[in-house]
Amino acid sequence: MSAGERIPVGIVGASGYGGVQLIRLLQDHPRVEIVYVGGDSSAGKPFSELYPHLGHAFNPTIEKIDLDVISDRCQIVFLGLPNGLACDMAPQLVAKGCKVLDLSADYRFQNLETYTTWYRKERTDYDTAAQAVYGLPELYRNKIRDRDLVGCPGCYCTASLLALAPLLKQGLIQEESAIIDAKSGTSGAGRQAKVNALLAEAGNTVGAYNVAGAHRHTPEIEAVCSDLAGHDLRVQFTPHLMPMVRGILATVYATLRDPGLVREDLLTIYNAFYRSAPFVKVLPNGVYPQTKWAAGTNLCYLGVAVDNRTDRVIVMSAIDNMIKGQSGQAVQCMNILMGWEETLGLPQLAFYP
Amino acid sequence: MSAGERIPVGIVGASGYGGVQLIRLLQDHPRVEIVYVGGDSSAGKPFSELYPHLGHAFNPTIEKIDLDVISDRCQIVFLGLPNGLACDMAPQLVAKGCKVLDLSADYRFQNLETYTTWYRKERTDYDTAAQAVYGLPELYRNKIRDRDLVGCPGCYCTASLLALAPLLKQGLIQEESAIIDAKSGTSGAGRQAKVNALLAEAGNTVGAYNVAGAHRHTPEIEAVCSDLAGHDLRVQFTPHLMPMVRGILATVYATLRDPGLVREDLLTIYNAFYRSAPFVKVLPNGVYPQTKWAAGTNLCYLGVAVDNRTDRVIVMSAIDNMIKGQSGQAVQCMNILMGWEETLGLPQLAFYP
Amino acid sequence: MSAGERIPVGIVGASGYGGVQLIRLLQDHPRVEIVYVGGDSSAGKPFSELYPHLGHAFNPTIEKIDLDVISDRCQIVFLGLPNGLACDMAPQLVAKGCKVLDLSADYRFQNLETYTTWYRKERTDYDTAAQAVYGLPELYRNKIRDRDLVGCPGCYCTASLLALAPLLKQGLIQEESAIIDAKSGTSGAGRQAKVNALLAEAGNTVGAYNVAGAHRHTPEIEAVCSDLAGHDLRVQFTPHLMPMVRGILATVYATLRDPGLVREDLLTIYNAFYRSAPFVKVLPNGVYPQTKWAAGTNLCYLGVAVDNRTDRVIVMSAIDNMIKGQSGQAVQCMNILMGWEETLGLPQLAFYP
Amino acid sequence: MSAGERIPVGIVGASGYGGVQLIRLLQDHPRVEIVYVGGDSSAGKPFSELYPHLGHAFNPTIEKIDLDVISDRCQIVFLGLPNGLACDMAPQLVAKGCKVLDLSADYRFQNLETYTTWYRKERTDYDTAAQAVYGLPELYRNKIRDRDLVGCPGCYCTASLLALAPLLKQGLIQEESAIIDAKSGTSGAGRQAKVNALLAEAGNTVGAYNVAGAHRHTPEIEAVCSDLAGHDLRVQFTPHLMPMVRGILATVYATLRDPGLVREDLLTIYNAFYRSAPFVKVLPNGVYPQTKWAAGTNLCYLGVAVDNRTDRVIVMSAIDNMIKGQSGQAVQCMNILMGWEETLGLPQLAFYP
Repeated sequence: MSAGERIPVGIVGASGYGGVQLIRLLQDHPRVEIVYVGGDSSAGKPFSELYPHLGHAFNPTIEKIDLDVISDRCQIVFLGLPNGLACDMAPQLVAKGCKVLDLSADYRFQNLETYTTWYRKERTDYDTAAQAVYGLPELYRNKIRDRDLVGCPGCYCTASLLALAPLLKQGLIQEESAIIDAKSGTSGAGRQAKVNALLAEAGNTVGAYNVAGAHRHTPEIEAVCSDLAGHDLRVQFTPHLMPMVRGILATVYATLRDPGLVREDLLTIYNAFYRSAPFVKVLPNGVYPQTKWAAGTNLCYLGVAVDNRTDRVIVMSAIDNMIKGQSGQAVQCMNILMGWEETLGLPQLAFYP
Repeated sequence: MSAGERIPVGIVGASGYGGVQLIRLLQDHPRVEIVYVGGDSSAGKPFSELYPHLGHAFNPTIEKIDLDVISDRCQIVFLGLPNGLACDMAPQLVAKGCKVLDLSADYRFQNLETYTTWYRKERTDYDTAAQAVYGLPELYRNKIRDRDLVGCPGCYCTASLLALAPLLKQGLIQEESAIIDAKSGTSGAGRQAKVNALLAEAGNTVGAYNVAGAHRHTPEIEAVCSDLAGHDLRVQFTPHLMPMVRGILATVYATLRDPGLVREDLLTIYNAFYRSAPFVKVLPNGVYPQTKWAAGTNLCYLGVAVDNRTDRVIVMSAIDNMIKGQSGQAVQCMNILMGWEETLGLPQLAFYP
Repeated sequence: MSAGERIPVGIVGASGYGGVQLIRLLQDHPRVEIVYVGGDSSAGKPFSELYPHLGHAFNPTIEKIDLDVISDRCQIVFLGLPNGLACDMAPQLVAKGCKVLDLSADYRFQNLETYTTWYRKERTDYDTAAQAVYGLPELYRNKIRDRDLVGCPGCYCTASLLALAPLLKQGLIQEESAIIDAKSGTSGAGRQAKVNALLAEAGNTVGAYNVAGAHRHTPEIEAVCSDLAGHDLRVQFTPHLMPMVRGILATVYATLRDPGLVREDLLTIYNAFYRSAPFVKVLPNGVYPQTKWAAGTNLCYLGVAVDNRTDRVIVMSAIDNMIKGQSGQAVQCMNILMGWEETLGLPQLAFYP
Repeated sequence: MSAGERIPVGIVGASGYGGVQLIRLLQDHPRVEIVYVGGDSSAGKPFSELYPHLGHAFNPTIEKIDLDVISDRCQIVFLGLPNGLACDMAPQLVAKGCKVLDLSADYRFQNLETYTTWYRKERTDYDTAAQAVYGLPELYRNKIRDRDLVGCPGCYCTASLLALAPLLKQGLIQEESAIIDAKSGTSGAGRQAKVNALLAEAGNTVGAYNVAGAHRHTPEIEAVCSDLAGHDLRVQFTPHLMPMVRGILATVYATLRDPGLVREDLLTIYNAFYRSAPFVKVLPNGVYPQTKWAAGTNLCYLGVAVDNRTDRVIVMSAIDNMIKGQSGQAVQCMNILMGWEETLGLPQLAFYP
C-alpha cells in the first residue's frame, strides 16, 4: 500500500465489529489510506478469513500489535479493542505524534476513579487521559478540534445524550426526572461468542438487563448530563436487548419545568440546537423514528412529543449503534480533528427497507 | 359434533388471531366442546382454508353469524371481532342466557363516553354494559364469578396493570409518576393486511407509535389504575413495535413514596399480592423476564428492581400478547365464570428457546 | 420427589436445548416422573439458574453424572450429551436394566466405522451398539418395541427421511436422483457459544454450510435410505442456516421412474404410507408446509408436488427441529418401548402465528 | 431542481421499494439528477410522507404520470410499476427519445406470448418490445449498449442465471438436470399490504410457494437458459420465503457431464467467465456466500462446490434482491447505455453484520 497524498491510518483491533465498520467506512473515505491493520489473536491471518465478503476489496494480513511499527507508519490510529487495553497504548502513540481515536471506554471519563469503579482497571495514564476529549461532536465539536486523543462515546450514550442535550442545556426539564428506556440490537455485544447473544436465545424475544443503574453506560451518560446541566445529576437508564442485528432506539421521558410548552416549541428548540449538526435530523411533528432509517448511516433521527396531560416531553432517538454509535462517530471526530469537512466519507442515506 | 357432557361453546370471529388461539386452547380444554365457529367474510369456507395446519385436527365449515343459531346451540360464546361489533351482539346473546366473553374493547369501559371518544361508536346498550366486568382475574376474580358478560382486557393493558397493581393498591408510589414503556410483537395488530405490519417494514427495526397518550389502551389502563388507587390518575404509556411475532414486555417506572424501600421489600409485597394468582410468576431478585419465557402460555412473569439512587421502582412484565393478553385470559375468565379450576386447559410451560 | 405409580426417569445432560425440551415434555407426561437431572459443568446448580422461566414449576439441583445413582433410581434414561459421550455410558446403564434413549449420534449407526470416520471417536461397545435401534418410529416402530437402547435420529435426518421414505420404499424414483435442500433454525447448533450462531451473525441472512456431502447427517441419511431401497445409495444433502430459532424445512427433489404419475397419485401413496403414523400429516393438494405450523409439536407436515414438465416429485417436509427432530421423538420412542399410547404427552397443535 | 451538466432522469412509480432504492442510488450518482418523480395513488403527496427518513435529503412532490411531461423533462426514465403498465408507456417514451429502463416483467420476454400466458395481459407493442434487451449486463452487456429500452431482470432470475450461466454456456452440465432452490427475503413481495407478507405470518418460519414450475420467474429463467444453451430447456425452480427483509440465495444443483471435473476446475471456469464483471465475486474454495454479504450493494457472490460422490456441481448465489436483483441492476444498465463507467454510483461494500 502506498499512501500517495492520503493520510496513513491504522486500525488496531480489526477483527471486531468496530474494526470491520471502520474498514468499510475508511475504504470509501477520500482523504485516508489504511496502512496498518493489527490484532492480537488474529495476527498473521488474512483479513478475509475473518470477513470473507471483503476479500475482493480489502485483504491485508493482520499484523501483531507493535506500537513502534504503528506510530512509524500511521498518522492517525483507531483503537477498537476491549475496554482496558487502549489506556496501555494511547500514551505512547500520542507521545509519538499520532492522533488517536479510541472506541473503547478508556478515555470517556474525566474522572478516572469512576472509570476504575466500573471497568475494574487501575489507571496511571493521568496526563494522557487529561488530554482526551469526549468524542460527541454535536456537543463538543470545538474541543475535539484541538486534541490528539478522542474517547469515542458508547452507543447507548450517543443515542441518549443527543435526545437529552437540548433539554438539559436549556434547563427545560425537572432535575432528575429523566428516564431513558433504551432498545439495542445484539451487535452491540460485539463478535464474542456468548450464550445470551445467540440467535437461539436472543431471537424472538425482548428483555431488559442491567436494570437500576447497573449498566456501565449509566455513569457515562450521567457525567455528560451533569456537564450539560452545570451540576451533578442522575438519570434512570434501562437497556433492553432487541431481536435484531443493528440499531438503538432510546425513548427518553422527562417532566417539563414549564407545563405551557407544546410540541411545536420543543421542535423549534431542537431544530435550533442542532442547526449546524449535519448528522442530526429532527423529524417533523408527529413523526417518530424507526431504527432502520438510520441503518448504515451516521445519522441520528430525533422525534419529539409533548404530553400536555402529564407535562412530559418524550424524545425518541434512533441511531445505527455500529456507525453513529461507534465507528462512524470516530470517523466524524477524525474529520473534525483533521480540519476536514465533517461529513467526509460518511453515509447519510439508508437503504430502506 | 356431539357435546357429550362437555359444555357447548361458540366462537364468533374465528378467522383472526384471537379466534385461532381460542380454537387451539379450547381443543385441549377438558370441559368444553366447540360447536359453532362463525365469521363474516369467511363464512362458508372450511376452517383449514384459513389455517391449513389445523385441518387434521379441526376443520368445521365457518358459519355465518346468526345470533339465534348461536344462542340456541352454545352455552358460552367468545366474541373475537373488530371493535364496535360485539356491542351489537352481546345484548341479545346475554338475554338468551349465554355467557359471553368479548375479546374486543366494547365491554372494557364502565364509562361508555370514554369508549365512544376513543372508538368512535355511539352506544345504546347501557344495561348490558353495566353488567359487564373487566376480565383481569388477578384484580377482579370475585366480580367475574357473578357475571354473564366479560370484557377481556387489551394485551398492553394486561401486561401493564399486572406490573402496576400492587404499587397502586398499596399506595407505594407517587401519584402520576408511573411511566409504561411497552414493547409488542406485531401479531398484536391482528391478521389484517397493513403496510406497516409487513415483515419488510416491521422487520429489523424498532419504533414507537401513538406516543403521548394517543393509544387507545391509555384510557383503559388509566381507568383501572384509577379504580385501584381510589381516584382518577393519569399514566404515561408508550407502545413500541418489536421485530418479533408474539409477546409484550412492559417496563414500568414509578417513584417510590418511601425511599427506604428496597428490592426485597418490593418482592415480598409482589409475592403476597399474587399469592393466589396461578398465572403470575414473580421472579427472584435480579432476574428479569424475557417475553419468550411466556410464549405459548397464559403466564405473566414479573421482574422487580429498585434503584435507590433515584428512588424508583422498575417492574418488568412479560406476557404472550395472544394468550394472557387475549384468548388465554378469556379462557381463564370462562373457567372462573363456570366455577371450574382457574387453570383448566391453559398451558403453563413454554417451549424454550 | 416420590415416584408414585409413575415410572422414574432420568435426564443426563439437562443444560442443553435437548434437555430443556425433554423436561418440558416429561413434566406434562402422565406416566413418568423426572427423578434425576444430571450434568457435568452445571452440576450443583439449581436448574432455574440455567432456565429461570421453569423455576416456578421445576427446579431440582443438577446432580453430577454417576451411573450407579442413575441406574438405581431410574427405569428410563435420556442421554442428551455431546456426541461421543453416550457410548461410554449406555453399556453400563443397559446392563443394569435401564431403557436408554440417546439423543446424540452415538447409536444411530449400525456400521460403527462410519460413525468413527465422521465423529472421530473409536468405539469398543460393539455388543451394546448391536442392540440399538434407529429411533424413527414411522419407519422402525416394530423394532423399537423390542429394544432397550434407541439411537434417536438427527433433526435434519428426521425431516429428510420422512419425505423420502415412501418414494424409496416403493421404488418410485430414479436411484441417486434425490436432492435434499434443508433449511434449519439456529437452535439446531445447541446452546454452545459460537460466533457463527450469534444473532448478529446469523440474523438477517441465509447461507449454506457443509456443502457437497460434508455434513455428518449425510451418512446417517444415506444409511437409512440404503436400508429402505435395499441397496447402497447416495443422496445430495445441503444444509442451510435460517434466521430463525426453531424449525426445519427439507425440500426434497427426485426424478420419478414413471413420468405418468401425477400429484394425486403421490398423495394417495403418501397417505397410505403414513396411515398409522399419528404425527405425520400429509397436506392436501397444493398446500405446502410452513415450519411454524409444526413449532412446539411433534408433528411432521408433508407437502407433495409433481412437476410433469420435468418428471420430478418435490416433497416439502416441516418439523420442529427440537421436538420431532429431537426430544419429542425420543419421548415418542419411549412411549413405544413402554407399550404406551404412541402420542402420550406429546403436543399435536401449534400456536399460530 | 436544475440539471446542470447532469443528465435529467425520471422515476415513474416512486412509492414502491424499487422506487425508493432507485432514489437512494441516484441521489449518490455523480452523472444524473432526479427531475421527475411520478406515481398514481401517491400523486400530490410529498415524498417524505411515504418515506419520512428521506425527507431531509429528498422531498419532491410526487407528480401524476403524464408521459408528455416526463419525456419533455427527462432523458432517462425508470419505470417501477406493477407488471402490465410499462408496456402502455414505454412505446411513447421511446418514441420521444427517452432511454427507458423498466423494472417490471413487461420487457423481459422476447416471446410476448409467453408473457401473456403468465401475466394475463394482451400485448400490441410488438415493435417496441422487439427493441428491448434483457438487462443482465454480465450476459448481455454488448447488446445493452445499443438499445433504448431495457427490461430489467427479476430478482430470482438474476441470482439463478448468474449461478447457471457458466455451466450452460460451456456445456458443462447434463441438460435439464438443473435445480434451483431459491430463498428470498419478503421485500421481494413489494410494499403492498398482503396477509402472507405480514411479519406475524412470515416471521419465524420458512416455506416454499409456487412449487413445480408455477412461479412466473420459471419461464423467464428458462428463456435465458435456453438462449445460453442454444436450444430450449427446462429447469426446476422452487422459491421459498425467508424470515428476513432483504436478500436472495439461490442454491443451484446440476449434474456434471464430465465427472472428472473438480472444484478447482469449476472455480477457474467461473473466474474466467466473470473476469470482466465488476459486480460478480467468485468466492475462494470452500467459502459459501451469506446473503447479507451482498446487502446494500450491487454485488453477486458465488460459491462453487463439486460433489465427486454424486457428480454434481452446487453453486450458491447471493444478491440483494432490491439492488442487484432490481434497482441497482437498472442503474448498472443505465451506466452501460450511457457509456459511463459500469460501476458508477453503485455500492460495492456491505456493512456487516
